Amino acid sequence: MKPLILITNDDGVAAKGLRTLDEVAMEFGDVVVMAPEYNASGMSHSITSSRPLRVREVKQAPGLSVYCCDGTPVDSVKLAVEYFCPRRPDLVLSGINHGSNSSINVLYSGTMGAVIEASALGIDAIGFSLLNHNPEADFTPCIPFVRHIIGTTLERGGLPLGISLNVNIPRLPADEIKGIRVCHEAHAMWHDSFEKRTDPQGRPYWWLTGKFVCDNPPEASDVWALDHGYVSVVPIHPDFTHYPALHELDHMFNS
Amino acid sequence: MKPLILITNDDGVAAKGLRTLDEVAMEFGDVVVMAPEYNASGMSHSITSSRPLRVREVKQAPGLSVYCCDGTPVDSVKLAVEYFCPRRPDLVLSGINHGSNSSINVLYSGTMGAVIEASALGIDAIGFSLLNHNPEADFTPCIPFVRHIIGTTLERGGLPLGISLNVNIPRLPADEIKGIRVCHEAHAMWHDSFEKRTDPQGRPYWWLTGKFVCDNPPEASDVWALDHGYVSVVPIHPDFTHYPALHELDHMFNS
Repeated sequence: MKPLILITNDDGVAAKGLRTLDEVAMEFGDVVVMAPEYNASGMSHSITSSRPLRVREVKQAPGLSVYCCDGTPVDSVKLAVEYFCPRRPDLVLSGINHGSNSSINVLYSGTMGAVIEASALGIDAIGFSLLNHNPEADFTPCIPFVRHIIGTTLERGGLPLGISLNVNIPRLPADEIKGIRVCHEAHAMWHDSFEKRTDPQGRPYWWLTGKFVCDNPPEASDVWALDHGYVSVVPIHPDFTHYPALHELDHMFNS
Repeated sequence: MKPLILITNDDGVAAKGLRTLDEVAMEFGDVVVMAPEYNASGMSHSITSSRPLRVREVKQAPGLSVYCCDGTPVDSVKLAVEYFCPRRPDLVLSGINHGSNSSINVLYSGTMGAVIEASALGIDAIGFSLLNHNPEADFTPCIPFVRHIIGTTLERGGLPLGISLNVNIPRLPADEIKGIRVCHEAHAMWHDSFEKRTDPQGRPYWWLTGKFVCDNPPEASDVWALDHGYVSVVPIHPDFTHYPALHELDHMFNS
């Protein structure tokens, strides 16, 4: 039986990056798409519990079923796995995101929220992002890398246990991308996150903005890799525990 | 100068758990509260970029300023640190959440999203949760533990570098809580996450539900600690990288 691949994103079901990912995934198996109807960027791992969700069928074609819902990327994964996939997916893909999810951006990303949810459900998952926010971005240079990463993962029978992948692709022509680097998240932060403005009635409001600051990223990090023309692949896992601190904290609170 | 403590939550500015946390925090320093106006449970690490935010001043008293906004818990932290704290906070507290944030629930939790955001900004942060969803839950048994953990952290001059804390408190009378255990997140998942129903017009909708499944949690895990009457303290950090997998994945994709 062909592999079953579930695809989602956070830019919405009509996004160009999603269509690119569908096309590559269909080379490897049957594809079910369940994505938010509209843009759900910055939704992280959020779930919708205060209202019910609706689902709309967008398209049925041989080897491809496309649905959208009015929930988040994480809702999309849960709903699709439980109700819209004909069997348990072999792989969940998310993206291709319009914009970077390297470094600390993984925390805010709906694209990566979906990946982490799949991983928490025990399903191999890979998130792809291109460092280009433009809705009309050219995804062509991504294709050979997306194909290689999906193909290798399926051939090998999956990812190492409990691991999912955060793949970012630099905004470069295909022949200038140097290859793949497996790396860790760079430590960074967003500065000046809100801009204060005044509305026409003279009342203040605050709008999210911010400047990504990552000074001297180490050579083993994703930001370094992307800055130097490589595709970055970061293995991630859905456990926030900082294991090395366990002993020190036990001493701190229990002595 | 007294420590400055910033407090937020995801149950909304009027929640009883937030008021309990304010009262304990005021024993240790000046307090600024910035919380979502209404319930923002399940918002994880999400941020609001598609619309501007408004802020409302709720209360000014000696040593206590209370504000609310129409954003998420993460928005609340960013906004408060940048515009509403008179100086950089020494500590960010989040909660006391009405309901568990142990194990995998940390992923979905707005309470813990706020903690991780503070940590990413380089500020020590602690999230507190009581295993009781009731809006009128009795938070009295939490108080000695919350006081001990805040007091110890401030006395020591902060948490170990890069670490924040996820503290969960069992739903037990004060004299039945056995103490504090520092532990790792239990691995678990939510089963049967959506319930399919039919509306009065005969159309389907799906509502989030689910059953928390954690079989045989190890003795070193938070679920075990809580099941056995202990307060669980999990050190967390905002880096999802699975470092032990780096070498294996490099071999997988680059050979």
